[in-house]
Amino acid sequence: MTIIAARRYRDGHVLLDDALAAASPARPGEFDWIGLVEPGIEEMASLADRYGLHPLAVEDALTPRHPPKAEAYGSQLFVIARTAAQDKNDALSYGQTAIFLGDGFIITVRLGSPRAHTDLRSQLEILPERLAEGPDFVLHALLDFIVDGYDPLLDTLERTAEAMEDRAVEAFPQAADIRRIFRLRRILRRLEVTAGRMEEMVGKLAQSELPAIDARARPYFRDVYDHARRTVSRVRGLLDALGNVLEVASLLEQSRQGAITRQLAAWAAILAVPTAIAGIYGMNFEFMPELTWRHGYFIVLGVIGAICALLFWRFRRIGWL
Amino acid sequence: MTIIAARRYRDGHVLLDDALAAASPARPGEFDWIGLVEPGIEEMASLADRYGLHPLAVEDALTPRHPPKAEAYGSQLFVIARTAAQDKNDALSYGQTAIFLGDGFIITVRLGSPRAHTDLRSQLEILPERLAEGPDFVLHALLDFIVDGYDPLLDTLERTAEAMEDRAVEAFPQAADIRRIFRLRRILRRLEVTAGRMEEMVGKLAQSELPAIDARARPYFRDVYDHARRTVSRVRGLLDALGNVLEVASLLEQSRQGAITRQLAAWAAILAVPTAIAGIYGMNFEFMPELTWRHGYFIVLGVIGAICALLFWRFRRIGWL
Amino acid sequence: MTIIAARRYRDGHVLLDDALAAASPARPGEFDWIGLVEPGIEEMASLADRYGLHPLAVEDALTPRHPPKAEAYGSQLFVIARTAAQDKNDALSYGQTAIFLGDGFIITVRLGSPRAHTDLRSQLEILPERLAEGPDFVLHALLDFIVDGYDPLLDTLERTAEAMEDRAVEAFPQAADIRRIFRLRRILRRLEVTAGRMEEMVGKLAQSELPAIDARARPYFRDVYDHARRTVSRVRGLLDALGNVLEVASLLEQSRQGAITRQLAAWAAILAVPTAIAGIYGMNFEFMPELTWRHGYFIVLGVIGAICALLFWRFRRIGWL
Amino acid sequence: MTIIAARRYRDGHVLLDDALAAASPARPGEFDWIGLVEPGIEEMASLADRYGLHPLAVEDALTPRHPPKAEAYGSQLFVIARTAAQDKNDALSYGQTAIFLGDGFIITVRLGSPRAHTDLRSQLEILPERLAEGPDFVLHALLDFIVDGYDPLLDTLERTAEAMEDRAVEAFPQAADIRRIFRLRRILRRLEVTAGRMEEMVGKLAQSELPAIDARARPYFRDVYDHARRTVSRVRGLLDALGNVLEVASLLEQSRQGAITRQLAAWAAILAVPTAIAGIYGMNFEFMPELTWRHGYFIVLGVIGAICALLFWRFRRIGWL
Amino acid sequence: MTIIAARRYRDGHVLLDDALAAASPARPGEFDWIGLVEPGIEEMASLADRYGLHPLAVEDALTPRHPPKAEAYGSQLFVIARTAAQDKNDALSYGQTAIFLGDGFIITVRLGSPRAHTDLRSQLEILPERLAEGPDFVLHALLDFIVDGYDPLLDTLERTAEAMEDRAVEAFPQAADIRRIFRLRRILRRLEVTAGRMEEMVGKLAQSELPAIDARARPYFRDVYDHARRTVSRVRGLLDALGNVLEVASLLEQSRQGAITRQLAAWAAILAVPTAIAGIYGMNFEFMPELTWRHGYFIVLGVIGAICALLFWRFRRIGWL
Ligand SMILES: [Mg+2]
Ligand SMILES: [Mg+2]
Ligand SMILES: [Mg+2]
Ligand SMILES: [Mg+2]
Ligand SMILES: [Mg+2]
Ligand SMILES: [Mg+2]
Ligand SMILES: [Mg+2]
Ligand SMILES: [Mg+2]
Ligand SMILES: [Mg+2]
Ligand SMILES: [Mg+2]
Ligand SMILES: [Mg+2]
Ligand SMILES: [Mg+2]
Ligand SMILES: [Mg+2]
Ligand SMILES: [Mg+2]
Ligand SMILES: [Mg+2]
Ligand SMILES: [Mg+2]
Ligand SMILES: [Mg+2]
Ligand SMILES: [Mg+2]
Ligand SMILES: [Mg+2]
Ligand SMILES: [Mg+2]
Ligand SMILES: [Mg+2]
Ligand SMILES: [Mg+2]
Ligand SMILES: [Mg+2]
Ligand SMILES: [Mg+2]
Ligand SMILES: [Mg+2]
Ligand SMILES: [Mg+2]
Ligand SMILES: [Mg+2]
Ligand SMILES: [Mg+2]
Ligand SMILES: [Mg+2]
Ligand SMILES: [Mg+2]
Ligand SMILES: [Mg+2]
Repeated sequence: MTIIAARRYRDGHVLLDDALAAASPARPGEFDWIGLVEPGIEEMASLADRYGLHPLAVEDALTPRHPPKAEAYGSQLFVIARTAAQDKNDALSYGQTAIFLGDGFIITVRLGSPRAHTDLRSQLEILPERLAEGPDFVLHALLDFIVDGYDPLLDTLERTAEAMEDRAVEAFPQAADIRRIFRLRRILRRLEVTAGRMEEMVGKLAQSELPAIDARARPYFRDVYDHARRTVSRVRGLLDALGNVLEVASLLEQSRQGAITRQLAAWAAILAVPTAIAGIYGMNFEFMPELTWRHGYFIVLGVIGAICALLFWRFRRIGWL
Repeated sequence: MTIIAARRYRDGHVLLDDALAAASPARPGEFDWIGLVEPGIEEMASLADRYGLHPLAVEDALTPRHPPKAEAYGSQLFVIARTAAQDKNDALSYGQTAIFLGDGFIITVRLGSPRAHTDLRSQLEILPERLAEGPDFVLHALLDFIVDGYDPLLDTLERTAEAMEDRAVEAFPQAADIRRIFRLRRILRRLEVTAGRMEEMVGKLAQSELPAIDARARPYFRDVYDHARRTVSRVRGLLDALGNVLEVASLLEQSRQGAITRQLAAWAAILAVPTAIAGIYGMNFEFMPELTWRHGYFIVLGVIGAICALLFWRFRRIGWL
Repeated sequence: MTIIAARRYRDGHVLLDDALAAASPARPGEFDWIGLVEPGIEEMASLADRYGLHPLAVEDALTPRHPPKAEAYGSQLFVIARTAAQDKNDALSYGQTAIFLGDGFIITVRLGSPRAHTDLRSQLEILPERLAEGPDFVLHALLDFIVDGYDPLLDTLERTAEAMEDRAVEAFPQAADIRRIFRLRRILRRLEVTAGRMEEMVGKLAQSELPAIDARARPYFRDVYDHARRTVSRVRGLLDALGNVLEVASLLEQSRQGAITRQLAAWAAILAVPTAIAGIYGMNFEFMPELTWRHGYFIVLGVIGAICALLFWRFRRIGWL
Repeated sequence: MTIIAARRYRDGHVLLDDALAAASPARPGEFDWIGLVEPGIEEMASLADRYGLHPLAVEDALTPRHPPKAEAYGSQLFVIARTAAQDKNDALSYGQTAIFLGDGFIITVRLGSPRAHTDLRSQLEILPERLAEGPDFVLHALLDFIVDGYDPLLDTLERTAEAMEDRAVEAFPQAADIRRIFRLRRILRRLEVTAGRMEEMVGKLAQSELPAIDARARPYFRDVYDHARRTVSRVRGLLDALGNVLEVASLLEQSRQGAITRQLAAWAAILAVPTAIAGIYGMNFEFMPELTWRHGYFIVLGVIGAICALLFWRFRRIGWL
Repeated sequence: MTIIAARRYRDGHVLLDDALAAASPARPGEFDWIGLVEPGIEEMASLADRYGLHPLAVEDALTPRHPPKAEAYGSQLFVIARTAAQDKNDALSYGQTAIFLGDGFIITVRLGSPRAHTDLRSQLEILPERLAEGPDFVLHALLDFIVDGYDPLLDTLERTAEAMEDRAVEAFPQAADIRRIFRLRRILRRLEVTAGRMEEMVGKLAQSELPAIDARARPYFRDVYDHARRTVSRVRGLLDALGNVLEVASLLEQSRQGAITRQLAAWAAILAVPTAIAGIYGMNFEFMPELTWRHGYFIVLGVIGAICALLFWRFRRIGWL
């Protein structure tokens, strides 16, 4: 199931269902849209031959973890985008879509990406005036679709981070929470790199003169660029927020331990009183006059109680208890 | 109440009260100022049709949390600004004003912003020579009004931060204070992003050649740019100040805990003396000569007192007590 | 006493003592130098009218805390510089000098700045060949004078920071010192912003083509730029140094507390020996053979002493005591 | 064994096995590929003379730790690349390859690099159409080979870092682990500098107009640039990860010490109860009524047990035990 | 001894030993090399007059701590470089060399720099073909000499830092070491600023079109630039390494204190057992059945021993002892 679709469009309408079977290339006003998933080297080679793709671009399209990029090869444009999807355990799984754009064709090569373009294709086929604009508008629709795909992930991550924040101001994070924050930061740092590259790539499409992209299409890429920039900014906000969680947690713990230290010191001082006094009257000297007093015991108990009460009151006053 | 106003001006004076009812567009020396609040998609579509607005700009104008930007669409200019207002609990609530600027018209679209432009409009209508300059001067007035709106918020935040600072040098912040600082930093980081985008947007208006903006208007945008830059600089100063508060608080607490540790150690040493000595004379050996001495008890009491006094004096001298 | 001076110069010599009374403007080879202190709006308005000053520049000149800037308005140049002076309690007090430079005139507007230009004026009037170069050389002299004014402040601050450093390596800073460092950092961060803006402003004068500034004057502004850059670099060095003080203080305190913890642990272990042993021989069992031994007491004392000595020796050897 | 190879190629096929013995230089369509390892100064001087190499480039080629660079000398190009290889104890050992590229020749000078180019040469000689492109394609093949050589090192380092991370979330790192992380960071910081310079150098080849490099070769250098950028990004990711390990370890330890402090405080409080009460009834007053009670001892034991149980239950409830 | 040398060279050979005595200036193919040390203002004034030096450059040449810079004054070039030399106590002492370069002359002005140019001059005079290139090659030789002079300092500092690192992984740094690191960082931060300015200055010479520098000399300045860049990179590496030392020391101390805390807690728990039990059997109740048991004492001793052994075994198992 490598070749998902291979249609030829004229003026935005499907002309051929199997463009690869056509003998002649697309004529003006026509273009082929070839969609591949995890293709083999030979299939790519035959396509490269048919459409004149650059071997370096073909190699990149088949490299599984290639960072996003946009590059011109002669009159053709080559783009790599990365899709992201929620995996279990907060993790994200990445996929890759490579796109070849030339005069009269667009070829998409998906690797490891769970989001098919089928819906997108149907959606575009309903709007022939959009498709009639040519393959650069298809490129825009694809990138818009991919960049939009980051939003639900960020929504989930922001909800997670907010829950973390709420918990952190209440108690020092459990070891499990610290580990989770730690994992989240790794995930977000990776996402920051990938989203940063996406922003860079879309920005290149929006700002530079590139082959196979019409001036009319430029504002559309600027619109995706806005979105990609916002994605990066959200990821950075999340990293900031998690850093904040750890910092506030550490400070609140410092404050709590300070309070406990003071409390401990106060109780240790209070309890040292009966220990020291009782120790003294527990000595076995033959001549210790107090021991023979009728009320010695009660006096000592009273003194101990009074000193302890006094200390308690003073510690409470300075806020240690 | 979507359409707040739709006047047509000629030479700075109101020509029509309902410009949308006019059959012909504004002539040279005239322009329409249409003010909308939370418009529906159909209303925007009819305006887009009437004034030739770009669909991507219309879409952005209706997107509630779009970051500030300035972008040219052909001969038109599209600007998004964000307003900020004090909410309860230190929080800020943001609103959005999108502005379409073209030959002979300016359209403003407010979403979620509590600050109406009515006063501004009246104020400008009193200065016909200003209005006569055309819609770019209206854009300037709007942005000046919006950027000025950040000042009272920053004044309040600066007063809050100063109070925090004053408290922090006196005592380790209460957990509630730490949480508040934590919340303030989140708020300020978000404000930093938004104000940074505002600065970028106004800077673009002040420095680049853009459609629909006269060279005569450029210095006016530079003036707003000065202000926007200063806003960003104040926000960063606030973030710095709050970081400082936490750092100084942590250091002062470290200093306080060091003092308590030393005090504790000193008292523990002093109190260990009677405990150890009394423990020894509390042993039940049959032959312990000191126990039979006539003044053994008083000698021991004296020795204990002397050692404790000596220790107390030494600890005081090295500053532990 | 708003208008301090209003002279007209020709070829570097005073031509008129009250240039504002003159009917005709300065001719080629002549220029007016008007000096104002805290002027009112009307005075400024009349000057603006006479010399064709831009209303935005006039407004900025009257705004008390405007950040430094250099901006061209048509054929005129507008500059704002900030002066700094030592206040009590390490604080700095800022003043502001706004300068309008045009064909045949220079106007200076001081707000809140305690450093008068009178001396500078006299100094320049002694060097007619300098004054004969025109108002751009006056601008240079003013900025040179203002930037030079930062040096004594930085000298004082550097002496303060050095004293702090010397104290910090000896003992953990007192709370009062921490607070002072904290205050100094706030002061320096603000100074960094202001000096950074001064550098940016002078750099603009030194590097860009600006109206009213001769190519011959450019090297002179580059000279001031060198100085402004060095000022910023000194401020950053001071911030670094204070950060260092806190870091080293914190580390040295950590080291001291570690030593105390080890000492405490060692003494606690040593003192636990007599307490535990004496406790055992203080039990009241009827049959405890050691209690009846002739030398039991002295043996126990000896054992206690030996164990304590052994522990003491071991702790000393591992450096805890 | 200084000169490893000195072949002359025509149209991608070996023409001469000892190009240095040839009287005439390479003609159009021909080029010499001279491979040297640790050459002496005289050998380099004779080559410099034969091919017109710049003395500064020759000096750099013989400088053992020269950072990567690409520089034009007239119509020739000079490149230095660094190879890295796994050493024992996590350490990396670096080697250096200097490359002179001119009209009709490429000279490689290896210093301290264990990776020979022999395989690469054989590989290229099998693809005559590649060699026929000229010496710039040989340069590309060399750089591609060198940059690819960083990958296995990074794979190893990433596995090491991951194992560190897994250990760190379980227990505070042993001193040996901390030292290893510390060593790894030093190694990675150095690698970051070297890889950054490699990226800069390849980027220069990919983006600027340089002598001796054909426009046709540009995309090939961009491909290596992609790879070099990714290398830098991986190194930074590793540094981030190790920083994270230390931070999370420190926080988890803070959390563990907090727990131990609370536990200690709780047990100290519980054990203070029998000590204080027993101390009181160990006093030797003649008149202490409880001592004569029939069940006094058991009552006291019961009271002690009850208070301890109550304290235990309360501490457990607040999570200290 | 202000004027060290004042020779005139023709085609790389000494023509006159006292160029200042010559009536006519240097002709094409000739140049004067004037070397001054700590000159007075009048000497400089007479030289400025003779060679047409710009007054601002002269002023900078006499300013003792001027940061490195390169600046064009008309057809002349003015350069300031800083030399560094090892002082005692890790400190560095800086000197300054100002260089005026014009058509037919080079003037060097040394302030506080202990490294004379005499050797360099003799060295160059042996290579007449080098001197024959003109004064720009003398400038190159001077800067090469000065930048090379940073290497031995960095070698020393790197050895110091390495020794610090080795000590830090073994024990928490002594207060004296912390102070030394602290001092080193101050020294290195200052060196970073100075070396950064040197790099900037040499980079300007290597990259921009400047007066009095031939295109032929450009590669030579690029070579010095390589070196200056590497110097900055080494200084930054040193700062990084020292930061690392403090961080690892702090973490290892945290680990050590954690271990001591656990050990203390364990011993406190073990020793609380005899204290508590002995305290109970030290009470003076008349009726305590265990006291009358024949083997009560030994049973209690056994119980105490057993509990202590059990605790010891458990603490050992969880790694606290
Ligand atoms: Mg990447
Ligand atoms: Mg989108
Ligand atoms: Mg990626
Ligand atoms: Mg959209
Ligand atoms: Mg955005
Ligand atoms: Mg949009
Ligand atoms: Mg304003
Ligand atoms: Mg945010
Ligand atoms: Mg926003
Ligand atoms: Mg204003
Ligand atoms: Mg500003
Ligand atoms: Mg203003
Ligand atoms: Mg300011
Ligand atoms: Mg000056
Ligand atoms: Mg200021
Ligand atoms: Mg000066
Ligand atoms: Mg400077
Ligand atoms: Mg070199
Ligand atoms: Mg390097
Ligand atoms: Mg490769
Ligand atoms: Mg290296
Ligand atoms: Mg780079
Ligand atoms: Mg590739
Ligand atoms: Mg490849
Ligand atoms: Mg100067
Ligand atoms: Mg400096
Ligand atoms: Mg050198
Ligand atoms: Mg210096
Ligand atoms: Mg530089
Ligand atoms: Mg060299
Ligand atoms: Mg810390």
